[in-house]
Amino acid sequence: MFVKNCWYVAAWSSEVSQEALFSRVLLNTPVLLWRDAQGQVRALEDRCCHRGAPLSRGRLENGNVRCLYHGLLFNPEGECIQVPAQDRIPPNARVRAFPVVEKTNWIWIWMGDPSLADPASIPDTFWLDDDAWKYREGYLHYGVNYLLVTDNLLDFSHLPYVHPTTVGGDESFANLRPTIDNLANGMRISRWHLSSPPAPFVRKVTDWTDPVDRWNVYDFLVPGILLMHSGSAPANTGAPEGNFENAVEFRSAQAVTPETADSCHYFFSQAHNICIDDPQVTATIHQILIDAFHEDHAMIHAQQKNLQIDPDFEMVPVGLDAALNRFRWMINKRIEVEKNSASPAAHGQGAQPETVQLNP
Amino acid sequence: MFVKNCWYVAAWSSEVSQEALFSRVLLNTPVLLWRDAQGQVRALEDRCCHRGAPLSRGRLENGNVRCLYHGLLFNPEGECIQVPAQDRIPPNARVRAFPVVEKTNWIWIWMGDPSLADPASIPDTFWLDDDAWKYREGYLHYGVNYLLVTDNLLDFSHLPYVHPTTVGGDESFANLRPTIDNLANGMRISRWHLSSPPAPFVRKVTDWTDPVDRWNVYDFLVPGILLMHSGSAPANTGAPEGNFENAVEFRSAQAVTPETADSCHYFFSQAHNICIDDPQVTATIHQILIDAFHEDHAMIHAQQKNLQIDPDFEMVPVGLDAALNRFRWMINKRIEVEKNSASPAAHGQGAQPETVQLNP
Amino acid sequence: MFVKNCWYVAAWSSEVSQEALFSRVLLNTPVLLWRDAQGQVRALEDRCCHRGAPLSRGRLENGNVRCLYHGLLFNPEGECIQVPAQDRIPPNARVRAFPVVEKTNWIWIWMGDPSLADPASIPDTFWLDDDAWKYREGYLHYGVNYLLVTDNLLDFSHLPYVHPTTVGGDESFANLRPTIDNLANGMRISRWHLSSPPAPFVRKVTDWTDPVDRWNVYDFLVPGILLMHSGSAPANTGAPEGNFENAVEFRSAQAVTPETADSCHYFFSQAHNICIDDPQVTATIHQILIDAFHEDHAMIHAQQKNLQIDPDFEMVPVGLDAALNRFRWMINKRIEVEKNSASPAAHGQGAQPETVQLNP
Repeated sequence: MFVKNCWYVAAWSSEVSQEALFSRVLLNTPVLLWRDAQGQVRALEDRCCHRGAPLSRGRLENGNVRCLYHGLLFNPEGECIQVPAQDRIPPNARVRAFPVVEKTNWIWIWMGDPSLADPASIPDTFWLDDDAWKYREGYLHYGVNYLLVTDNLLDFSHLPYVHPTTVGGDESFANLRPTIDNLANGMRISRWHLSSPPAPFVRKVTDWTDPVDRWNVYDFLVPGILLMHSGSAPANTGAPEGNFENAVEFRSAQAVTPETADSCHYFFSQAHNICIDDPQVTATIHQILIDAFHEDHAMIHAQQKNLQIDPDFEMVPVGLDAALNRFRWMINKRIEVEKNSASPAAHGQGAQPETVQLNP
Repeated sequence: MFVKNCWYVAAWSSEVSQEALFSRVLLNTPVLLWRDAQGQVRALEDRCCHRGAPLSRGRLENGNVRCLYHGLLFNPEGECIQVPAQDRIPPNARVRAFPVVEKTNWIWIWMGDPSLADPASIPDTFWLDDDAWKYREGYLHYGVNYLLVTDNLLDFSHLPYVHPTTVGGDESFANLRPTIDNLANGMRISRWHLSSPPAPFVRKVTDWTDPVDRWNVYDFLVPGILLMHSGSAPANTGAPEGNFENAVEFRSAQAVTPETADSCHYFFSQAHNICIDDPQVTATIHQILIDAFHEDHAMIHAQQKNLQIDPDFEMVPVGLDAALNRFRWMINKRIEVEKNSASPAAHGQGAQPETVQLNP
Repeated sequence: MFVKNCWYVAAWSSEVSQEALFSRVLLNTPVLLWRDAQGQVRALEDRCCHRGAPLSRGRLENGNVRCLYHGLLFNPEGECIQVPAQDRIPPNARVRAFPVVEKTNWIWIWMGDPSLADPASIPDTFWLDDDAWKYREGYLHYGVNYLLVTDNLLDFSHLPYVHPTTVGGDESFANLRPTIDNLANGMRISRWHLSSPPAPFVRKVTDWTDPVDRWNVYDFLVPGILLMHSGSAPANTGAPEGNFENAVEFRSAQAVTPETADSCHYFFSQAHNICIDDPQVTATIHQILIDAFHEDHAMIHAQQKNLQIDPDFEMVPVGLDAALNRFRWMINKRIEVEKNSASPAAHGQGAQPETVQLNP
């Protein structure tokens, strides 16, 4: 079961074009994505209502999509507008159309009640489309339930253990309890690690060897969106007070979107605002991320294998689980509300805008 | 569930020899096929009654089959006639023997009540063993329920969409409703497409560019047998009235046989009676078929994937489904009759001969 | 379901070291094996109690094991002794620790009630660590329930059929009913085949062509341990009476340990006491075993496939099944006793020492 009435990241903008029909399974539903003549992204259920064939194996015709199994034609609203060899279109001949919004390089999709889809509730990821920031687009496929990935992202104490040579660093980092502030649609997790050795991650793009003030501050939002401001500054230069003049800063946007009950999509990026004219720096930062996320990938799949062998295994909670327990509780509550809600109005709360304001 | 009391195609004649033990799963049952000293095809359950080992890993001994796990010996009737280290043969030590009939290059098998197996009910496929016709033997394995393949074969409106460059052609073909005539054991589906452009299929073996009269007339019989007379003739030369003098004619024999609930065997051929001394023509026609059937294979597996992701998906019927809906209804009725029938006599109807007489 | 209160072979001694964390799934439980500073083998559940990550992806720290997902530290008794960012250790923060005993090159593990684990009940396999005997360590993984493998080992009548060119020989061997003597924890199976042709197996290490007296005498013990004395001697030189002076003798130690319900580990060896200074002889004997066990592997997987296709298939018993039927009965009874037993004392019987005394 998934939360339905919320925005999910469906794709990077670059994945969807006017020329091709792009297919991706989201929340156990095959979804067809393409751009219309105006360049606007459209999304339909990628399963012809007639015999279930994927429309993505079909053909664009003047803005409509023809199924290339038996020739039914659908308009971008999902209505069947032509059936070979008959004039009458069955009234139930339609596929689902999904609200989509393209915003700063991400394509967001609403898989629930379309009447509740409010674009204003899409989180702000301005740095994904801002000349002052550079990054590369990342994607990984996971063969595990998406909550194992959000678990991972909600507890950075794993950094020194899983990523000692990439994005991790000194193990004392793990002993630092983050500050967790509740947000209407998630939580803000803040970690300040003062006067500590620079992380391998940072050492690759600076020549720093002296202690630094290091921070990770991120909002983690339903259904699985991580928006982070992080960085390092030479110790005692005022970063905790908001002075980032001497800092190496990063802005990360990450999103976990369920594919099926046992698999998910992971979109990620790590933007930097120094050396933005040097593509090698961008490439290096991206490569460190790739390396680190493959470390997570290996660990989480190993964890999944252990969980599958004994479905009755019960996790022993520790203090560092505070954020992820809260997140799982939020997800479950949203699912329950959607299940019990008879009137669409009841979903309204979940669709409220969530303003993301990370300092600075 | 499958219809049991009917003839299924088990193999091409060339697949079964006197030298080797051939194994194939049919209707969820492992079947062993071989030829006895007289060249007659024999069929036993390919699963030793002792511990379940495949007899096909065994050895022929004077017309009997020895299991090469623990040495039990079976005669061609499936009776165990020797057990190492004991004189007494347990009375239930036997494997099932299946009636088989070899006829014009196909080996037919009866998986139901042997007392009902009447060879006269096997459809006539004379052109598979007739010097006036040439063809190559085709086989494809499908990882889908066999009804998705029979669906495909029962609605040729998919031809222009799935096979535009192989056996398809002009899309107006899909708007032509076929004539469907009921037969005792299936239906006859006729399509006449007058004064239309020659299909790519036909253009490859002729130099025709002028309009042709094109037809597909096929009997589709329980449990999944397609017997077709098709062709093209220059328009207005009398083909619809039965004059095929100037025509390019084809006779196709195709059979879908369930392997398991989620897989099936597909035997096919397309015989021609022009240029029969030119092996290149035969090869070309066969290659077009192979190419086309791989197009179906890709589409049907994509369809299957979509159906599996949501078992509750409900197909929206359209007019062109008439034949395939009727066929599924016939199959279900036969299965129900077999299930409810207490006396073997009740199965008799299903075994009645089905004379296939395609013009001319 | 598996018998829990008994010793299973977990690994060859050489598989577990002080430097690496070795992981193997046993009885559906992930198990971590390593050697402590004293070289003693330790075994913990390979699944961190926190989030289920494998400890084998972790790190040894002064005899303790740190999980390298979130940093929990466990002592060799399985108690969590450190949790990052908190002082209090949750009382249920622990993983299972398993009794292990290393004895003559095999590492034995007790997966049941530790209070019942009596090392004296471990079978004697002295030749695995005796300069008078040479062998190589063998291992095969099976993708089948372990009882299909123990079935195979409990009925050697399959030898001439499955292994005609390796460890088998004349088919009359299969007609010889073995003597079966009951043991408290299994059975002794004896086969004497007098004045028969030397087996291919024996011909490879001798120049014998005259008839030999051949024997296989093995104890087969719960949960799946085969301990065999076998060999061949020139006929009429007194082997049946205990004179092995002119004999080629072998001592085989084999163990089947369940991995999951559908897979198992198979440890094996065939020691010889002639030509022990010629590594080529040892290699040849081992290679024959490898070849033979791949023949079993192929047959048993083919059998498994047949059994899976129809879970309702019922095996027809024959006389040669006596030993394997008795063994399955013993296993089932032990499982039932463990299930019904409320007091640990009731398990005592199963842990009683089983003295293995094979002649001479």
